[in-house]
Amino acid sequence: MDIGDILALCKRRGFIWPSYEIYGGVAGMYDYGPNGTAMKNDIIGSWRRLYLIGEGFVEIDSNTIGPEAVFKASGHLDEFSDAIVTCQGCEQSFRADHLVDGMHPNPDSLSLDELQAVLIENGVVCPDCNGKLSDVGEFNLMFKTVIGPGSGRVGYLRPETAQGIFVNYPNLLWFVRGRLPFGTIQVGKGYRNEISPRQGVIRLREFNMMEAELFIDPKDKTWPRFDDIADQKLSLVPQDGIERTVTVKEAVEEGIIANQALAYFVWLTRRFLVGVGVDPSRLRFRQHLSTEMAHYACDCWDAEVELAIGWTEIVGIADRGCWDLSSHADHSKTDMSFFRKFDEPVEMEVDRIRVNFKSLGPRFKGQAKSIATALEAGDPSDVIDGIITVTVDGVDHKVNSDCFEVIRVRDKVTGERFIPHIIEPSYGLDRIIYTCLEHAYCKDGEGYIALKLAPSVAPIKVGVFPLMGKDGLDDMAQDIDRSLRDLGIRTSYDDSGSIGRRYARMDEVGTPWCVTVDYDSLQDGTVTIRYRDTKEQTRIPSSDVPSRVSTMLREGLLTWADPLSINK
Amino acid sequence: MDIGDILALCKRRGFIWPSYEIYGGVAGMYDYGPNGTAMKNDIIGSWRRLYLIGEGFVEIDSNTIGPEAVFKASGHLDEFSDAIVTCQGCEQSFRADHLVDGMHPNPDSLSLDELQAVLIENGVVCPDCNGKLSDVGEFNLMFKTVIGPGSGRVGYLRPETAQGIFVNYPNLLWFVRGRLPFGTIQVGKGYRNEISPRQGVIRLREFNMMEAELFIDPKDKTWPRFDDIADQKLSLVPQDGIERTVTVKEAVEEGIIANQALAYFVWLTRRFLVGVGVDPSRLRFRQHLSTEMAHYACDCWDAEVELAIGWTEIVGIADRGCWDLSSHADHSKTDMSFFRKFDEPVEMEVDRIRVNFKSLGPRFKGQAKSIATALEAGDPSDVIDGIITVTVDGVDHKVNSDCFEVIRVRDKVTGERFIPHIIEPSYGLDRIIYTCLEHAYCKDGEGYIALKLAPSVAPIKVGVFPLMGKDGLDDMAQDIDRSLRDLGIRTSYDDSGSIGRRYARMDEVGTPWCVTVDYDSLQDGTVTIRYRDTKEQTRIPSSDVPSRVSTMLREGLLTWADPLSINK
Repeated sequence: MDIGDILALCKRRGFIWPSYEIYGGVAGMYDYGPNGTAMKNDIIGSWRRLYLIGEGFVEIDSNTIGPEAVFKASGHLDEFSDAIVTCQGCEQSFRADHLVDGMHPNPDSLSLDELQAVLIENGVVCPDCNGKLSDVGEFNLMFKTVIGPGSGRVGYLRPETAQGIFVNYPNLLWFVRGRLPFGTIQVGKGYRNEISPRQGVIRLREFNMMEAELFIDPKDKTWPRFDDIADQKLSLVPQDGIERTVTVKEAVEEGIIANQALAYFVWLTRRFLVGVGVDPSRLRFRQHLSTEMAHYACDCWDAEVELAIGWTEIVGIADRGCWDLSSHADHSKTDMSFFRKFDEPVEMEVDRIRVNFKSLGPRFKGQAKSIATALEAGDPSDVIDGIITVTVDGVDHKVNSDCFEVIRVRDKVTGERFIPHIIEPSYGLDRIIYTCLEHAYCKDGEGYIALKLAPSVAPIKVGVFPLMGKDGLDDMAQDIDRSLRDLGIRTSYDDSGSIGRRYARMDEVGTPWCVTVDYDSLQDGTVTIRYRDTKEQTRIPSSDVPSRVSTMLREGLLTWADPLSINK
Repeated sequence: MDIGDILALCKRRGFIWPSYEIYGGVAGMYDYGPNGTAMKNDIIGSWRRLYLIGEGFVEIDSNTIGPEAVFKASGHLDEFSDAIVTCQGCEQSFRADHLVDGMHPNPDSLSLDELQAVLIENGVVCPDCNGKLSDVGEFNLMFKTVIGPGSGRVGYLRPETAQGIFVNYPNLLWFVRGRLPFGTIQVGKGYRNEISPRQGVIRLREFNMMEAELFIDPKDKTWPRFDDIADQKLSLVPQDGIERTVTVKEAVEEGIIANQALAYFVWLTRRFLVGVGVDPSRLRFRQHLSTEMAHYACDCWDAEVELAIGWTEIVGIADRGCWDLSSHADHSKTDMSFFRKFDEPVEMEVDRIRVNFKSLGPRFKGQAKSIATALEAGDPSDVIDGIITVTVDGVDHKVNSDCFEVIRVRDKVTGERFIPHIIEPSYGLDRIIYTCLEHAYCKDGEGYIALKLAPSVAPIKVGVFPLMGKDGLDDMAQDIDRSLRDLGIRTSYDDSGSIGRRYARMDEVGTPWCVTVDYDSLQDGTVTIRYRDTKEQTRIPSSDVPSRVSTMLREGLLTWADPLSINK
């Protein structure tokens, strides 16, 4: 199969169009045409159903532009960059790691200096004009803009939707009435200002994401529905590189996947992907090597699919630990902690601050009493270089170590504070849509194309055809069309060309069922229903069409109640 | 009613949160919390159903970043700006037209010089620090960025989703197999870098839009379903400022609304808004004055709602004429025309290019023949300053007027080319959501708050309560909860606090129905269903709950089949 065939079909049949084509296009930008948008909406719908109705997550919708402070805290300002070289002749820019492809086993893992060395060693020149290349530099991949007039306030387009969830953690915790674990999802755009995007819809400058963030107690990473799926099978490639098939339970018990929650969402991801039409035999989960892990992750599994271009990541399921909330707490000076109450108070050795009134009194005079109260309620771990800062009536006071000491006492403690951990399944929606298309693409010896899309994501569910657009066949077909649309089912009414051509048009866009009204229909009230994959045709009463189609659609749908229903 | 009350409720109950609050927030940016996002998704769903399934439009999803050329053509680079003044003391910036509010009857209509004059006349100083103001300048409201590395390619965040549809017109026309009229919708973000946004969610820097673009023959602006709704009533404020209630048919026949298609979509907008919960007695349609019309519009009607802050535009329905496609055709050198075939060929006087071979031959030698063919097929209106450019084998040739002449002949003509017109209903989704909330907000004398949201947009459809979380009441309630969620219905299971408090919590987020399981339920299998608006409570068999709720939800839904069903 050739990727060109699929992109040609995508363009011809209104799935995916290069953006701004009349202006020559922009690399790394693609639009969804009508059929692509319908698929996209269905995939989002399936995903939302799983997380919102199935797992009880909530959904938010945050802004795509964020102020600099957010991305300083998230690490993107410092870490979200690629190594760049620019040709001194034609002024084209390239990713340095792409240029050394094949010259080093793992270009991803190289530092700027190491990349530079490999380029020089191999005498690499500009692939377009053979020009001399600049030194390797660093290019931050966030799109930058200015919020408000003048030099204003620097803003960036978000590289992931996740940060919008993290900064809302205090609001979310309030919303769920202060309980852990809780999950939040977001669907929306992410941006990555690629240096030189060349892989079609796989590497986009503007892309669509579906992200789920599970806030969880680091001491209890179990998941309530884990037992339901403990015996399900997963195909895993751990860090040792050896692919194996194990049950979800074995994966956790043998320490292949770090914890229940992470393993559950690996499994849920598999279930989702197979449900929307990814071929399970071309799907695997690969653990990140420590060298390729993002700056925030402590364990990460990628869902990878086999495409014409090779194995490609389409979902990442990461245990981000406490990295994000800790960093935002630090940078925003906001309390992001959670209080875990013990079942009953525990007597233990704890550090406390004891005030030295002799020094404190003269130093702070009238305010000494309230500062003393604040000090004694303070946390000894906040003492930095012998100084602690306490806030009284909104004013910060720096207090020197001569005014207090840290002592260890035995005390009854009712609970403890901690920063929740985050487990994040992050779905690349564009790559999922593309995978559904490529895995569904079938071309036979005569060049006949059918897209065997899962009915739940097919842009058109039913083609409705009158054999001829006259003699009342049209009226009857229009009634059927209307009865389906009344149920919210997307149809395509078509009365032009031969029936064979109409079937072919529907096969090319993945329509699972076609209904044809012919002259017999007028006599006996039956119509022909034709199945895309088997090409089988049977007659059923026309009045049965809506319920028959609804039932078949429901059967293919991901429902939350029976997590095993779609497992293959 | 106070807008502060509503915003406080929105924050407390997870509808709307100021963005990046832990970093001090950003003016003009708000996030949707879980309840707001649920409402948003439902409103989008209702709207899509009307346009896609009801009117047969298609949907696309285009990029939010666009290259400069697109916005040069759309007029936004030159026209999408506000008059700005900056305080020389505190460096705050302000919209000049806002500062002269009350000093002039129509600040919107003033030029920069006129605004400057009014500011000077009235001795206006900085409202924050009384500092001296700069001269009035112009501030373009698009967020600017750079696509790719280096100084790269300038890009802007789209100010409307519409341009993404217009630039795809050639793709769309192919997709609909070359027929007019056809409609396309898009749902997504729009951006407007406001100088100093101060009206909460009404004036946002990043907002959500739902836009529909109808491509239509300028000589036939009828609409197939017009007759179905011709007798429906509309409350209109035409340019004369006199409000009147007329039927849709009268509005067109009396020339109040320019054409059937425009009038149909004014009506459809009314139907949609009332369907999602806008109070029809606080809704009107006002025609733009010629001074306030956007640069592209030839007629425009705003849906305005009455809010605590006054009458506010939430939808604009504009006849954009051929402005957009003509401009993109010019700037991109792409043919955006449509060929209208006459019923039969018409004999008429037409201009043709006749080649002067005596001059052409010597000038172009071996290529003269193919250039002559191209010239004779050319359009005389492309002759500019006596020169026409023709393309042969991909090469442009400029041909001087000594090589040809334009002659008028009588000829049989099979049809004519024209640029389609565009009718655009453009919906401000954030304002619609806010209006639904404000119009639903009810506070009684004791301060008891209920949100009387339309069930179709309520974030939670059913509250499910066991009277006590034990004795099997919880199991029975959980079964009911699950049976509703199986149908995709959003519920809230709550077993904490008194039933009265639980009802109150649900009333505050607009939940239309609550179901309570009590000890009688265990005996006779019935449960109490309680209605938000009437506070009526009745007992029904627990097994009837899913079908009862589904039926009530369907009754409130906007369906396409019966366009009058929700008309009030």
